[in-house]
Amino acid sequence: MDLRQLGEWKLIRRIKTSFPASRHGDLVLGLGDDAAVIRTRSDKSLLLTTDLLVEGVDFDLSLCSYKQIGYKALAVNLSDIAAMGGRPRYFLVSLAIPSRASVSFVDQLYQGMQGLAKQFKVALIGGDTSSSPRDLFLNLVVAGEIEPSKLVRRAGARIGDRIFVTGTLGDSRAGLEILKSQGASSKMQTNSKRAVKRGARSLPFAALIHRHLYPMPRLREGRLLATEGLASAMLDLSDGLASDLRRLCEASRVGALIDPAFLPISPSLTRYAGFKERKSSDYALKGGEDFELLFTVPPSRIARLIQLQQREHLKVTQIGVIRPRREGVSMLARNGEKKKLNLVGYEHFRRK
Amino acid sequence: MDLRQLGEWKLIRRIKTSFPASRHGDLVLGLGDDAAVIRTRSDKSLLLTTDLLVEGVDFDLSLCSYKQIGYKALAVNLSDIAAMGGRPRYFLVSLAIPSRASVSFVDQLYQGMQGLAKQFKVALIGGDTSSSPRDLFLNLVVAGEIEPSKLVRRAGARIGDRIFVTGTLGDSRAGLEILKSQGASSKMQTNSKRAVKRGARSLPFAALIHRHLYPMPRLREGRLLATEGLASAMLDLSDGLASDLRRLCEASRVGALIDPAFLPISPSLTRYAGFKERKSSDYALKGGEDFELLFTVPPSRIARLIQLQQREHLKVTQIGVIRPRREGVSMLARNGEKKKLNLVGYEHFRRK
Repeated sequence: MDLRQLGEWKLIRRIKTSFPASRHGDLVLGLGDDAAVIRTRSDKSLLLTTDLLVEGVDFDLSLCSYKQIGYKALAVNLSDIAAMGGRPRYFLVSLAIPSRASVSFVDQLYQGMQGLAKQFKVALIGGDTSSSPRDLFLNLVVAGEIEPSKLVRRAGARIGDRIFVTGTLGDSRAGLEILKSQGASSKMQTNSKRAVKRGARSLPFAALIHRHLYPMPRLREGRLLATEGLASAMLDLSDGLASDLRRLCEASRVGALIDPAFLPISPSLTRYAGFKERKSSDYALKGGEDFELLFTVPPSRIARLIQLQQREHLKVTQIGVIRPRREGVSMLARNGEKKKLNLVGYEHFRRK
Repeated sequence: MDLRQLGEWKLIRRIKTSFPASRHGDLVLGLGDDAAVIRTRSDKSLLLTTDLLVEGVDFDLSLCSYKQIGYKALAVNLSDIAAMGGRPRYFLVSLAIPSRASVSFVDQLYQGMQGLAKQFKVALIGGDTSSSPRDLFLNLVVAGEIEPSKLVRRAGARIGDRIFVTGTLGDSRAGLEILKSQGASSKMQTNSKRAVKRGARSLPFAALIHRHLYPMPRLREGRLLATEGLASAMLDLSDGLASDLRRLCEASRVGALIDPAFLPISPSLTRYAGFKERKSSDYALKGGEDFELLFTVPPSRIARLIQLQQREHLKVTQIGVIRPRREGVSMLARNGEKKKLNLVGYEHFRRK
């Protein structure tokens, strides 16, 4: 059955059914009126973020499934909430899709969101659906909350603060490279999580592909860093470390010096980079879509961070230090000299 | 200059400049971080609504300008806030546009939002920009606020409540018809408000075209109806009276009887329908995108409504009455018989 046969109203009813009205404490009205209504509290601030995925630009349907697109759309928005130290609560989905598309594609798209929505207790409370002449377009908005005193901005890093990242860097970029080189053949193999798990043994670099298709928003980490008052500045790595670190430094009006030797690289990426005869640090510095957190910690809070690292199994790695603004954003080269970190992140519209 | 030459970051900076960070009381962080941050208050509820406009589906660039698209995108979202009785405060814009597009097109798009944003004091606090392979997509989210006790839902109409609408109905549909029949030639003439004002004399039905291109969100009316406790149920007319009245009735679990003789028709539409040898009530019943408010008023509150109608120059018209659910949604035919009101509104995906 395609969407022309189902029609918009039945499609909306279908979506509603797959996201049952949750008994979310503060939700007054969810799907089905002109606007969603949320009771607010004066001890919490509201966080609002939005991210847009466009077919042929942000994803390629020959390389990934509808489910993976749905997953990723929600994950990247949750990642923005994580980067403020917040707790996500609600989301709205705007979808434009060609009428000839199969209803099951739309089902899969929303299924991709369901698991994450359940895991992080975020409720679907609104959206809009439209047909699209050609390309698929998916826009999500996530609303979250945070105690005003716990908020972590991009601006806030001070000279001498240490620079940290969560997880490992560069995996997503390598995963995308593999997907592209394998073309559509890999789509089937990565279509379900189970297949990826199986693939982890059979397919040589399935873990890297998985990191690209199923980025994990670092909500637990971001929340812990915020509530413990550890992070002086924070953002999530969407365009690549080099580019996002520059962004954090610009907002904080500081410089930075990082040591590429300390960049956390996964064993899979080490093997893959070796196989491709490239430096793994290139993937870590320039690769986008890792959705790890980049944050700074004042020296006085380092001891507490190390404590938590052990007690909460927090996977964080120090990669550098905040320097005066006039020194710019640089990295240590092999010979011990400082080298400017070039702006190499992803930018829309630019000719590549 | 096109967007490839400007690049995404400069585009974002350009947008920021044209919407200067307003000293909006409760805004903690606007554009420029991972999420916008808003201080919330326990005496207000939050309203969230989203609407998506797709090129080739919701608008046709040969019939309207970028400025008109920008205007309409914000207007239709504000209209949703009006339909809850709320006050709009903030908005987020997601835009996907081909890289080959001229930077001035994007400027015009945002200019279309600026006037409305200023008029209703809504601040741009977030968004996302992406290139698009072919078509333009524009998704807006508006956040508003309302006192919990003043909220007006779709569900709330009771048997015996009178049915009202604001303004006049059917103009927008007629305007679209004229635009389509005139084709691109009318684009120039309606490109600026001044041209439309001039056109009101020169072009025979410019007022109808204007209603289609520049719908006015009925925020003052919605707010007044809510704060005075007059409306028991309310929504905004986006898909056409027949279809939207059914929606209100379904949500309220009631039926309705309307009298087409009472539908408020503008002099322009009367003339236009006469000229086309069609019934003006057809436009009023089936035409979408009027963005007037449809609401119900309990008999006990009618006197107060009439008082306000005069004192506040509120333009509202009674068109019918709420009936038991088993009677369905019908209208009085000429012969005095009741006739089922068919579902004739706009629906995405359906073959036309």
